[in-house]
Amino acid sequence: MTSPYEAPVQKLLDELGRLPGVGPKSAQRIAFYLMKAAPEDANRLARAIVEAKDRVSWCRRCFNFAEGELCVYCRDDRRDATVLCVVEEPRDIVAVERTQEFRGRYHVLLGAISPIEGVGPEQLRIKELLARIPAEGVEEVILATNPNIEGEATAMYLARLLKPQGLRVTRIASGLPVGGDLEYADEVTLGRALEGRREVEA
Amino acid sequence: MTSPYEAPVQKLLDELGRLPGVGPKSAQRIAFYLMKAAPEDANRLARAIVEAKDRVSWCRRCFNFAEGELCVYCRDDRRDATVLCVVEEPRDIVAVERTQEFRGRYHVLLGAISPIEGVGPEQLRIKELLARIPAEGVEEVILATNPNIEGEATAMYLARLLKPQGLRVTRIASGLPVGGDLEYADEVTLGRALEGRREVEA
Repeated sequence: MTSPYEAPVQKLLDELGRLPGVGPKSAQRIAFYLMKAAPEDANRLARAIVEAKDRVSWCRRCFNFAEGELCVYCRDDRRDATVLCVVEEPRDIVAVERTQEFRGRYHVLLGAISPIEGVGPEQLRIKELLARIPAEGVEEVILATNPNIEGEATAMYLARLLKPQGLRVTRIASGLPVGGDLEYADEVTLGRALEGRREVEA
Repeated sequence: MTSPYEAPVQKLLDELGRLPGVGPKSAQRIAFYLMKAAPEDANRLARAIVEAKDRVSWCRRCFNFAEGELCVYCRDDRRDATVLCVVEEPRDIVAVERTQEFRGRYHVLLGAISPIEGVGPEQLRIKELLARIPAEGVEEVILATNPNIEGEATAMYLARLLKPQGLRVTRIASGLPVGGDLEYADEVTLGRALEGRREVEA
């Protein structure tokens, strides 16, 4: 069947449908919203896409987003260069920063090992991570990949690579979320919470 | 708090967040997808937005999308000009066309009456609908607005305007969806299905 829409509308529907989490129905909603929007509003979105791609790229050192050569954390001399927090994606940096508990530097892998999606270690920024350790005098690597299958596999893989280099290699804790409820915890999380139990300091 | 992202990334997040059905989390997912995508893929989306806005506008007659003056249905002389199907949005035309049951013309209101959202009859393409009736020799108007509060109110409003002009004014039927289940039907729908019952032809 040919498209019931004028070609440029169909093209817009196709392009929107490629975005993650945007199915055919959402693509329609967004396309109709844009068609009804003031031209300057739609153009502002188009321009934001082009400008973000043009002006922002990856930090040469840690692979966070960066407008210049280095990202905001790598430019900041007050950050502790001896502790490196390894995350999967730039958004994870935002999550860690919100805790205000970490003053070291970051390294973004840009993904996680996932055989199902065909992502192996060589697709991640692991070579670059290994190069940073002697170059920057890193003493501890905190593995802050996601606590799911891919993230755990990636953390395990990195731990095996890094431990022999005489570094402190740590993994963020898994357990019950604060404010959570034992009754509703899944058994894997609760198992982890038990496994990771700590002496109460009284 | 200032944005944890480089300004162009934050700008992209803001613009994506304005789209209908796109919350902060989806905006992040889409933005990161675009940042990781090949520049030509991201640019293709930006271009699709700009071109759809540039090249496609509203049909001068029925307010469907149109690349030129008239939409594909208004350009088609084989369509029956005496029957007009009134819908809320261009996407509703696509739904009606899929049934292959209708060979008349359309009129798109570009919305529905909604006091809550501040949409009154004067914001809809009702004046233009009224002008078409004598001009095109319309004999029947099918009110195919959505079977929800706004759509029903709009249909009622239009029926009151159109009936005195000696036209046949009809409303699409409400009832149980085909393949549906009586047990799971809500009482309003089932009520409508009873109210709209028809003689069985045997």
